[in-house]
Amino acid sequence: MIDLMETVKFQAEYAYCIDSDELESWPDFFTADGLYRITNALNEKRGMPIGIVHAAGQPMMRDRITSLRKANVFEAHRYRHLLSLPRLLGNGRAVTGFMVVRIMHDGTTDLFATGEYHDVITEDAGELKFSERVVVMDSERVDTLLAIPI
Amino acid sequence: MIDLMETVKFQAEYAYCIDSDELESWPDFFTADGLYRITNALNEKRGMPIGIVHAAGQPMMRDRITSLRKANVFEAHRYRHLLSLPRLLGNGRAVTGFMVVRIMHDGTTDLFATGEYHDVITEDAGELKFSERVVVMDSERVDTLLAIPI
Amino acid sequence: MIDLMETVKFQAEYAYCIDSDELESWPDFFTADGLYRITNALNEKRGMPIGIVHAAGQPMMRDRITSLRKANVFEAHRYRHLLSLPRLLGNGRAVTGFMVVRIMHDGTTDLFATGEYHDVITEDAGELKFSERVVVMDSERVDTLLAIPI
Repeated sequence: MIDLMETVKFQAEYAYCIDSDELESWPDFFTADGLYRITNALNEKRGMPIGIVHAAGQPMMRDRITSLRKANVFEAHRYRHLLSLPRLLGNGRAVTGFMVVRIMHDGTTDLFATGEYHDVITEDAGELKFSERVVVMDSERVDTLLAIPI
Repeated sequence: MIDLMETVKFQAEYAYCIDSDELESWPDFFTADGLYRITNALNEKRGMPIGIVHAAGQPMMRDRITSLRKANVFEAHRYRHLLSLPRLLGNGRAVTGFMVVRIMHDGTTDLFATGEYHDVITEDAGELKFSERVVVMDSERVDTLLAIPI
Repeated sequence: MIDLMETVKFQAEYAYCIDSDELESWPDFFTADGLYRITNALNEKRGMPIGIVHAAGQPMMRDRITSLRKANVFEAHRYRHLLSLPRLLGNGRAVTGFMVVRIMHDGTTDLFATGEYHDVITEDAGELKFSERVVVMDSERVDTLLAIPI
């Protein structure tokens, strides 16, 4: 049984990891074979499970961060996450609303994305980990080619 | 005495109900004769209690959702709520900041409204219910003719 | 040892104080010689500690509010804050993400600023107080000449 406040803290740590640009630690929030996927609400509703961005397992996640560090030198941007209280659905499943603001290198700030995290959370040696984190965007128009994880 | 964490959970469930488009369940968050009203901070300050949108009792709320389902077929939009920690003022009164993002059918996302919920919360057969929820918008310029509850 | 939920409540009260335009109470959230400073993430990273806006001690804070009340009659605006869960770093240190929306007198609403509060919180006669609150903006382009505290 995953505790509500522990879940809130775990998800907040995940958000701070990204917002502080500590992306090399991002894969550590997942189990070794954890799944990370970005999709949108319409696709989910239609039962089209193949997401827009996909990473299966920590090695693929680490590769993604390495590529990101190499590629994005000239287009650096940062995120700021705000989260809702998670809904715990049992068996480690949680749904959590989010809002992400993007801050571009030149200081421009805009509301980048909103949606829900659909998580499966497990306990691994006393620590919470995502065995699955599906990012379900509210909009179909989010530019998800941008490589920073959400 | 209403508990802080129970209030947070109850208000989060209300927000998920709307954001998940489960509007038929929206009246269930109120007592049978509960009051729902939208107004703005300026009107409240001037002591003009008649709100912009008004629903008194669950039957009027259900009517509103039925009309909404019939009317808004071609202009569907969704909301995403984020809430502040409620301030408990005693006697079931709570004030809670909110931010609502609107996602239009074409994917356009904008910051739709901010403000405060001014609630009176009661316990009804072991469940929390709003006997009153007044939505106090920060701005006078919000397009509140749009029919989805906030 | 500062408690997480007590910190969350204290920071929420601070935000409501500003959002409710009860600015005369703003200095009371600090110790008598408390420090308030606004800077941005780039400056902090470069180790340039001199902030954009600075107030040392409650008297300077009260002066600032007095000036604000005199000067800003014709350009009134309001804020709405949303906060992340704080990260407690020990010794009263806390980091807390924020998003601030600005509502102008004519009702225009925009995402004004995002960033982190870097706080040092102490207990003073049974009440939490900021002995230091550094507002670290994510963007360098925020118009911090505007005088309402964040």
